[in-house]
Amino acid sequence: MGLKPVFLGLGSFVGKGSPANNLQTADIDLRLVGRKSITIHCMAKATDASLSPFFDPQSVVVIGVSANPDKLGYGIARNLVNCGYKGAIHFVNPKGGTLFDLPVYTAVNQLPEAVDLAVLLVPAQVVPDTLEACGEQGVRAVIVASGGFREVGAQGARLEAACLDVARRYGMRLMGPNCIGLMDTHLPLDTTFLPPPAPPTGEIAFISHSGAICAAIVDWSRGQGFGFSRLVSLGNQADVTETDVLAPVAADDHTRVLALYLEGVSDGRRFMQMAQQVTRQKAVLALKVGRTGGGKKAAASHTGALAGEEVAYDAAFRRAGIQRAQTAQEMFDWARALAWCPLPSGNNVAVLTNAGGPGVMAADAVEANGLVLTSLAESTEERLCEILSAAASVNNPVDMLATASPQQYASSLRLLLNDGNVDAVLLILPPPPMFTAIGVARQIIPIIKAATKPVVVALMGDNLIQEAQDAFRGAHIPTYPFPETGASALAALAHQANILAQEEEPVLLEGIDIAAARELLTATEPGWLSQEIINSLLHTYGIRTPAMALAQTAAEAGAVASEIGFPVALKIISPDIVHKSDVGGIALNLAGKAAVEQAFAQMVTRAHEAHPPAELSGIQVQRMIPGGQELIVGVTRDPQFGPLVMFGSGGVEVEGLQDVLFELAPLTRAAAQRLLHETWAGKKLAGYRSIPPADETAVLDILIRLGQMAVDLPRLAEIEVNPLLALADRATAVDVRARIS
Amino acid sequence: MGLKPVFLGLGSFVGKGSPANNLQTADIDLRLVGRKSITIHCMAKATDASLSPFFDPQSVVVIGVSANPDKLGYGIARNLVNCGYKGAIHFVNPKGGTLFDLPVYTAVNQLPEAVDLAVLLVPAQVVPDTLEACGEQGVRAVIVASGGFREVGAQGARLEAACLDVARRYGMRLMGPNCIGLMDTHLPLDTTFLPPPAPPTGEIAFISHSGAICAAIVDWSRGQGFGFSRLVSLGNQADVTETDVLAPVAADDHTRVLALYLEGVSDGRRFMQMAQQVTRQKAVLALKVGRTGGGKKAAASHTGALAGEEVAYDAAFRRAGIQRAQTAQEMFDWARALAWCPLPSGNNVAVLTNAGGPGVMAADAVEANGLVLTSLAESTEERLCEILSAAASVNNPVDMLATASPQQYASSLRLLLNDGNVDAVLLILPPPPMFTAIGVARQIIPIIKAATKPVVVALMGDNLIQEAQDAFRGAHIPTYPFPETGASALAALAHQANILAQEEEPVLLEGIDIAAARELLTATEPGWLSQEIINSLLHTYGIRTPAMALAQTAAEAGAVASEIGFPVALKIISPDIVHKSDVGGIALNLAGKAAVEQAFAQMVTRAHEAHPPAELSGIQVQRMIPGGQELIVGVTRDPQFGPLVMFGSGGVEVEGLQDVLFELAPLTRAAAQRLLHETWAGKKLAGYRSIPPADETAVLDILIRLGQMAVDLPRLAEIEVNPLLALADRATAVDVRARIS
Repeated sequence: MGLKPVFLGLGSFVGKGSPANNLQTADIDLRLVGRKSITIHCMAKATDASLSPFFDPQSVVVIGVSANPDKLGYGIARNLVNCGYKGAIHFVNPKGGTLFDLPVYTAVNQLPEAVDLAVLLVPAQVVPDTLEACGEQGVRAVIVASGGFREVGAQGARLEAACLDVARRYGMRLMGPNCIGLMDTHLPLDTTFLPPPAPPTGEIAFISHSGAICAAIVDWSRGQGFGFSRLVSLGNQADVTETDVLAPVAADDHTRVLALYLEGVSDGRRFMQMAQQVTRQKAVLALKVGRTGGGKKAAASHTGALAGEEVAYDAAFRRAGIQRAQTAQEMFDWARALAWCPLPSGNNVAVLTNAGGPGVMAADAVEANGLVLTSLAESTEERLCEILSAAASVNNPVDMLATASPQQYASSLRLLLNDGNVDAVLLILPPPPMFTAIGVARQIIPIIKAATKPVVVALMGDNLIQEAQDAFRGAHIPTYPFPETGASALAALAHQANILAQEEEPVLLEGIDIAAARELLTATEPGWLSQEIINSLLHTYGIRTPAMALAQTAAEAGAVASEIGFPVALKIISPDIVHKSDVGGIALNLAGKAAVEQAFAQMVTRAHEAHPPAELSGIQVQRMIPGGQELIVGVTRDPQFGPLVMFGSGGVEVEGLQDVLFELAPLTRAAAQRLLHETWAGKKLAGYRSIPPADETAVLDILIRLGQMAVDLPRLAEIEVNPLLALADRATAVDVRARIS
Repeated sequence: MGLKPVFLGLGSFVGKGSPANNLQTADIDLRLVGRKSITIHCMAKATDASLSPFFDPQSVVVIGVSANPDKLGYGIARNLVNCGYKGAIHFVNPKGGTLFDLPVYTAVNQLPEAVDLAVLLVPAQVVPDTLEACGEQGVRAVIVASGGFREVGAQGARLEAACLDVARRYGMRLMGPNCIGLMDTHLPLDTTFLPPPAPPTGEIAFISHSGAICAAIVDWSRGQGFGFSRLVSLGNQADVTETDVLAPVAADDHTRVLALYLEGVSDGRRFMQMAQQVTRQKAVLALKVGRTGGGKKAAASHTGALAGEEVAYDAAFRRAGIQRAQTAQEMFDWARALAWCPLPSGNNVAVLTNAGGPGVMAADAVEANGLVLTSLAESTEERLCEILSAAASVNNPVDMLATASPQQYASSLRLLLNDGNVDAVLLILPPPPMFTAIGVARQIIPIIKAATKPVVVALMGDNLIQEAQDAFRGAHIPTYPFPETGASALAALAHQANILAQEEEPVLLEGIDIAAARELLTATEPGWLSQEIINSLLHTYGIRTPAMALAQTAAEAGAVASEIGFPVALKIISPDIVHKSDVGGIALNLAGKAAVEQAFAQMVTRAHEAHPPAELSGIQVQRMIPGGQELIVGVTRDPQFGPLVMFGSGGVEVEGLQDVLFELAPLTRAAAQRLLHETWAGKKLAGYRSIPPADETAVLDILIRLGQMAVDLPRLAEIEVNPLLALADRATAVDVRARIS
């Protein structure tokens, strides 16, 4: 397996692509992704070779350099020369001359050799011609730093398309336009124009859709005491996208964490495939912005109404093992911990403090972040009693009191790290009144570095802790100004450990006649499916429904009801009526033939009143099942990430109660279980007060089957079961709507 | 009104207290608090005169000074001398000598004059005697900085009680023990031992239960570029509490914001009264820690089970107009904005940026913080078009593009501030690639300072924005490292404006016979109330119930049902059975006499099976009302803050769905409306899909009446209506339980 390209396991899409994008995505089946046999260890081999000139160029040419230090074209030349890049550097500017003791060629075709990577900072209008010249010259990859393309309107978009055409024609990969390029602090390589000094080397790679964010983050990080391994600014992504760079960046040995600033993704399912592989080895964090302004569109189903773009991103990131940060600060707070700390083997946190207040703050934050303020082993507490003052608190949080010496910090920390009940330590260090913070730092740094459990430090203050701050940062121990952020970082570590422990394979049920199901839909017009077809579909997928039949007359309804058995429900069936209950199109608990006939007549009248042109297919007579818990299960399609399964509390109030969650289809068992464990509807299946328990396994099974149906049947735009009735020994789909596109 | 003590309007509790605590709280009626006539303008007069020696002492003695710079007793002397305190300074230490050119007296009784304020840093055991000496010497207030009291155990607690005894005996007020004292940067006064430099002067007062947090925050604030007006470390609060210092600190002209670090409050209702007055004039922020570890106690009602301590704090802070921060960082992010910015007159925010990425981030954050990304006036957009480049985006967020000049920043900002659709501006300033951040700062600072609308700046970066950072801080314009924190600060400003606009008076209904209601309870044993008494109570408070009667036999039940009218419900009535549905003690929809009699018999059997010793009072026959929306309304008592009203979705799943909110009783109209507007149960009253609208006014009225009942009847421990049935034209209390203590 070692040398085999990783994509071989993924089906038919290797090598079929265009030179500029050799991955085809249309027919990718997510069920094949994430199989354990596809390991990340061969990821470097899987990296698209056409991208390697970006990340390991033998030579770089900057086209559009300037001798004027105020110009960005000077900045790029300066950074490339000063960064210590070891390959050949060439400059081009029609004016010629020399710059940083290197000749400036007057045109691309004057270059003395074929060059791997070109960085363009020339006016937008001349970029296509310049690309043409690069292609002729054998350039393999281009960073277009110039702006003035798609971001400025239609004319710019046409120019951008022209650039892409040229690049494709020559088999050159193109990063940008409208980006600030890339940086590798270890190689080193710096094609940006960012003002010096460059960030220090580090373990965090930052991939950003926004150049301004890149520039700000690189500057900001200096004050935060962490560096970067790589920085990739993607700009307009005419060619190279966030998905393309995931694998090559993750393959970098210096990179331990990938931090992504995303304004969206360009191909959701392909992004998922790459991310699922990358996250098996490297921690991936994402700040996805652009939540607003989309505005939810009117939707005919609850599922459609509740499944916004953000819900899909959340589900996709969760499935891919990407941690989604809410703010930039949070992303980098987490990134430092993930870059520098070992992962904990559980959620049990011990807090070590020299003051009560910050200890309480820490205890709150530990629990607010979903971690556990652990109970210490008795032996730990006994030993702590021996080394601490009598008034100290040896329960967690361990409060050594203000007099705590550096030695007490060290000994107590050692005891906590040796306690089997402790998976991680949050150490609190406000300016100690009797000692110095640096004194404490010196004692504990070797202990933290030697530990196999993570320790993060809430180092509170400014002047008084500066020296300690430097010492911790130098030792790559993450510090935070308050216990709250420290606890949040510990939670990211625990979450990362969970991601790695996750069972990744979606459940694939055997024995479903997919061909028959597809056949059913082939003959059908786009729109809402008839009850007959829905019933056949459900039958094919092994999903139970109550006994039912369609009646055209009141008399027929009465007869059918007598056969099925009472009580029955009547439901109006009309292609024009989606929400039956809104037009009085549902009658429940009809206990005899007469009641059925009367209800039939009323329903027809009401339906015609409410929807004068409504075409009635008939009225469905359905056996009513007493009791049970009302659930909703729905599947809808996200334009980026494909089918999403929704589960939650059913009934008419679905959108109001919002007791629903989403997961990507097909479901893994863990994902299906999460839907149950994290909703009230799911928890209640175990029984609650006077509500008897219901068949959780049957519900789980139906979730998986519906998810599979959505994957098998691409024409199935949405399907919603509401209610799905969960009974003691089964679950049955009482009311189902489905639409094909 | 001007010179009248503010408390006169509050009833009988002025001047009745002990010398050490002249406010009595037991009988305070919250209904009288917050009346508009009680304005804050006379607050300074209301300040407890016994506390003035802390905040404006004519002379200070430090007892326990040291000549050894490593000792805290040296630190206090140093800070007091160096801070520039203008009153007389005295030192005491048995060794005598001189310190900072001042004589060190060998004993308190050697002092040459009566001293206002004494600061003690002597061993715990000698504190009581030292206090005695202070009392003899005429000292009026004492800060006990020494530790070794209640915080170290029972013996320390006894010592602390002894200290309080001495203080009370001499009419001295006591701050601490185990505190770091106080600081006033404007007076100036500094009785702390914190290492220099002291924080710069500022507009934020910090009141803290934790000395360590004080020390850390003071040090941390230096790097954050803001100062403090006052700092009060309360320590163990043997005498002076957080409530005591609210008014005197708020009365300080230099203080614009009070930031509180609280581990609880010592007297909830008194805290409320003080806070409600203070927040009319000054912004008050609180970080309340200690959420964990309490553990919810088992409760017999849903209301009791859901009403934790934190819920009560949230409701109390909300009512008092205190903004509750979730983290220390957040509290001071908000505090700076509140100290330096005018309040907005609405929630409409404009974002001004030179880069798209941060603009999107800002737009997300504006909406995530409950603010509105406003639409700009057409004329504003037109003018922006004129001054910005063609590719700029003149919709909100206004993106001037990377080339934006300082002049464009200034002109655009002016246009936004002049737009009537804009209440506040979030200005984004990452390092501009073509200009400098300080260049932009210089242009916009005068505009921001002249504006009557708040502007906060997301100043992104470190090195490249340092000069701009200093300029903004110097001009008292709040900056934040990212748009997200800037938006959060704007939200705090908008929230503060809402607090000031809030209608504060609880609703008082006339014509309720409180005496009769009290009479009803007087004769009753503690425990659950009988249905008869409950019915009388509800009747007294004008709360409607369905027709009902108690039956002792099946035949009687049948007869009663025939009289009341079908359908009826049967409910078991037993002092031993609280949750009727759990034991099959409820039968619904009984449509005839036979059904009633049969259900009666079954119910009695089932109840005896479930609770063999259960004593049955009978079975209640109640007219069933078809349709309606099921709500829950409950009242329970918080030990600190008194009665809390809960409202939300009713039924058996209350605790699972958690669609409930709490407000303090008695309710203001705004509080009652919030209960409705922010729960699904309340929103649904307007009707939803097939659910017809219900009588919202009637529900609001019942909420207010129940709240008032809880206030009128202190013995009423809890009352819960579940369901409260909301119908088209009324709301009726279908099932009610109540307990007295």
